[in-house]
Amino acid sequence: MKNPRVVIVGAGFGGLQAAQSLANSKADVLLIDRNNYHTFVPLLYQIATGQLEPEHIAYPIRKILRRCSWKQSNQKPQLRFLMAEVERVDFSAQIVETDSCAIPYDFLVLATGSQTQFWGVPGAAEHAFAMKTLEEAVTLRNQIISCLEKAVQISDPLQRQQLLTFTVVGGGPTGIEMAGALVEMLRGKLRRDYPTLDLREVKLILVQSGDRLLTNLPKKLGIYTHKRLRQLGVQIYLQTKVSQVTPKSVHFPDQIIPSATVIWTAGLTANSPETSEDLSSAKKGKLIVQPTLQLLEQHNVYAIGDLAYVENNGKPLNGVAPEALQQGVAVASNIKQQLRGQAPQPFDYFNKGRLAIIGCYSGVGKIGVLAFTGFLAWLMWLGVHLVYLPGWRNRLLVLLTWLYTYLLGDRAVRLILPR
Amino acid sequence: MKNPRVVIVGAGFGGLQAAQSLANSKADVLLIDRNNYHTFVPLLYQIATGQLEPEHIAYPIRKILRRCSWKQSNQKPQLRFLMAEVERVDFSAQIVETDSCAIPYDFLVLATGSQTQFWGVPGAAEHAFAMKTLEEAVTLRNQIISCLEKAVQISDPLQRQQLLTFTVVGGGPTGIEMAGALVEMLRGKLRRDYPTLDLREVKLILVQSGDRLLTNLPKKLGIYTHKRLRQLGVQIYLQTKVSQVTPKSVHFPDQIIPSATVIWTAGLTANSPETSEDLSSAKKGKLIVQPTLQLLEQHNVYAIGDLAYVENNGKPLNGVAPEALQQGVAVASNIKQQLRGQAPQPFDYFNKGRLAIIGCYSGVGKIGVLAFTGFLAWLMWLGVHLVYLPGWRNRLLVLLTWLYTYLLGDRAVRLILPR
Repeated sequence: MKNPRVVIVGAGFGGLQAAQSLANSKADVLLIDRNNYHTFVPLLYQIATGQLEPEHIAYPIRKILRRCSWKQSNQKPQLRFLMAEVERVDFSAQIVETDSCAIPYDFLVLATGSQTQFWGVPGAAEHAFAMKTLEEAVTLRNQIISCLEKAVQISDPLQRQQLLTFTVVGGGPTGIEMAGALVEMLRGKLRRDYPTLDLREVKLILVQSGDRLLTNLPKKLGIYTHKRLRQLGVQIYLQTKVSQVTPKSVHFPDQIIPSATVIWTAGLTANSPETSEDLSSAKKGKLIVQPTLQLLEQHNVYAIGDLAYVENNGKPLNGVAPEALQQGVAVASNIKQQLRGQAPQPFDYFNKGRLAIIGCYSGVGKIGVLAFTGFLAWLMWLGVHLVYLPGWRNRLLVLLTWLYTYLLGDRAVRLILPR
Repeated sequence: MKNPRVVIVGAGFGGLQAAQSLANSKADVLLIDRNNYHTFVPLLYQIATGQLEPEHIAYPIRKILRRCSWKQSNQKPQLRFLMAEVERVDFSAQIVETDSCAIPYDFLVLATGSQTQFWGVPGAAEHAFAMKTLEEAVTLRNQIISCLEKAVQISDPLQRQQLLTFTVVGGGPTGIEMAGALVEMLRGKLRRDYPTLDLREVKLILVQSGDRLLTNLPKKLGIYTHKRLRQLGVQIYLQTKVSQVTPKSVHFPDQIIPSATVIWTAGLTANSPETSEDLSSAKKGKLIVQPTLQLLEQHNVYAIGDLAYVENNGKPLNGVAPEALQQGVAVASNIKQQLRGQAPQPFDYFNKGRLAIIGCYSGVGKIGVLAFTGFLAWLMWLGVHLVYLPGWRNRLLVLLTWLYTYLLGDRAVRLILPR
C-alpha cells in the first residue's frame, strides 16, 4: 500500500514545524517553498540595520530536513523538499500546481504566511521599503547606507536633510524595533566612519495611526515604549495617517516631511494561494478555519500561521511566531489522527507571553499577568530569539555578533551590495 | 598654505595600501571606489562555493580608513573616502570626473584593477559566469545551488546531466581553486541534502588552452596539480580552446559538452579609465609606467596593480596581490618624495614566493628555489590569506568557518538569494 501523501506549502515557522512534526509519521511529506531557506523573520530588522549577516538568519531548509528525514528508515526519505512557486491549488483533483510540476496530495497544509499591506496609500507600494523578506531587508540596508554615502557628497542642507531623515510607518513591534535599531545604528560608532558628516542631523520619525504604540500589548507598555523612544530622539506622530509616499518625502494630511527612506511596517495581508474553489475569508484576507485548523470547505486541507484566522478564547490570535509554531505541531498531530481514522482535535493556543524589543538596552514584555520593561525585557527578547533561531552554528555566530555590537557599540555589516 | 591633494582611484589591494601608507603624510588623501567595501579577491571562490559569507571577505572601506585617518590631528581627517564611479580623468585640468562631482588633484594614483576578458568567444560574455567581483561570486553560488534544486525535479537524464556538469575555463590559480572547491562542495556532505539525487552524476570539467596547468609556476607543480585534480575526479582538457558558450553547453572545436554552468577564469584585461589624452599601453590594456610607477606621459600620475604593466628583472609581473600591495607602499613613498621636492625611486618587487590552493587538503607552492606540494602548501595558503584578510572580526569568523567546514566536510552557506 502506498503511503499517504502530505504536502505542506510554505516553510515559515508553521510549515516547517508541521514538516518536522510529521517526520516520524507513516506519511510521505513534501515541503514546498519558493526559497531554499527558512527566514527567521523576527531578526530581519537586524539585517536591515547592518547588525547581522543575511546568512545568519536564513537557514537552508534541506539542512533542517536532513536531520529528521532519515530517522525512520534508511531506505527512502519520508520528508522531502521542493523549491518551487505554488501557482494554484485544485481541491477536486487534490493537486498542487507549481511552476515546475503538479503534485498530488492526500492532505494539504497551507502555510503561505502574509505580505505587506500598503492600504492603497499612493506611492507606498512603489517607494516605501517593506521588511517582510530577506531580500527586502538587504535592500533596506543598501538604502540606509547609500543615504549616508550620498549625504557626504551633498552641500545643500535641504537635500542632506532629506537623505538623513528616516521614517518608520507603523507603531507595532516591527516599527518599534526598527526605530530603536536605527537609533543604535546611526547614533553609534558609525559616526566615526563619516567624519565630514554631522550625524546629529539624522532625524528619526515614527508614525502610528492609532492613539498609542504597541496596541496589542498592555497600555502601560505602550506608554513606556513611547517615552523611551522619545528619550532616544525619535519623533513620534500618533493618530497620524500617511497619505502619500514619494521617493523624497512622506505626506501626512497636514504636512509634508522630506524623507528619502520610508519604512513600511503598518500592515499585513494574508498571502492566500489561488484555489479552484472560493474559500471563506475573514479580514486581512485570512482563511477561516475550524477549531481543528481544517478549512471549512475541505476536511483534508489545513491552514495555519498568518494565513489562517484563528480565535482563542473568543479573541483572534495576533500572528506571532509562537502561534504558528504551535499550530504546526497541532496540524501534524491532527493529520496523524486522521490517518488513524480518528477525529482531529481543536487547537488550543498556550500563550507563553509577549516580548517586544525597543533597542538601546530596553524592551517590554508581558508574561501571564506580569508586565515588565527595560533591560530585563531587552535581554529576554534576545535570549528567547537566540534559542529559537535554527542551527547551532547560527546561534553561535549571532551570539558573537551581538557581543561584538553591544559591547563595542559598532555595526559589523555595512556593505552596499549591488543588485 | 593648502595641503597637496592626492586622489586614489580604486580600493583594491594597491589603492587601499597606498591610502593607508599616505595617512601620515602632509597630503589630503581622497580614496574613490564604486563600492563602499574592499573585496578580498583571493577568497571569492569560497563565496561562490558556499563556504564563506560575502560579508566575511568584504570590508567596509570607511572602517579601514577611520583607523588611520585621525592619527595626525584631531582637527580634520586627512584620509577621506568617496563612493563614486570615475568617468574620466582630465590630465590638463588635473581633475577626476565622477558620476557625482569633479575632483581636483595634485597627485593621482590609478589603481582600477582588471576585469574578465572573454576574448570574443561567442556567448561567453552573456552566458559564462565570471568571478572577479563579490556580486559575480554570489551570482555563481546562486547558479550552482539552483542547478541542484532543478536537477531534483527533472527525470530526463540528459537534462539532469546538463544541470550537473560544471565547467571551469582556465587552468591558472583561479581555475584550479574553483575546480577543487567544487569537488569539496559537491562531493562532500551536501549530498545528504539531496537524498533523491545521485551526486555521482556530477561532472566537473577543467579546460586549459595551454599544454599544462599553472603556467606561471614551475612545471613540476603544474603536473602535481593535474594529477591531484584527476584523482579528485575532475576531467581536464589541455590544449583546448572554448569556441562557444550557450546557456546549456560549452563548445570545443571538436565536441559539445552539455553544461549549464560555465565558469570563466581564462583571462583578464586592465580596467583602464577614460582619459583626456591617450596613454601608452602594453598587452591586456595595461598602462606602461616608468620604473617609478609614474605614467610615461604624466609625472604626477601613477598606475599600480593590475592596471599597470611593470617589469621586474626584465620579466613582467604576474598581477598577484603582493605585487599590488608593495606597489601601494612604493607609490605612497614616491609621492612623499615628490612632496619633499625629491625624485621618486624605482619600484623593486620583493617576491616572497607563490602559493596556489587546489582544495581537498592540497596545494602547491614555491618559495625561493624551494617548490613543495600537498597538505603543507594547502595549510600555508589558508594561513597566509587569513593573515592578510583585513579586520580581526573577519579573521575570527573565517577561521571558525574553516574549522567548521574542513572538520565536518560541510558547507555552511547555500542560500539562493533572489536578486
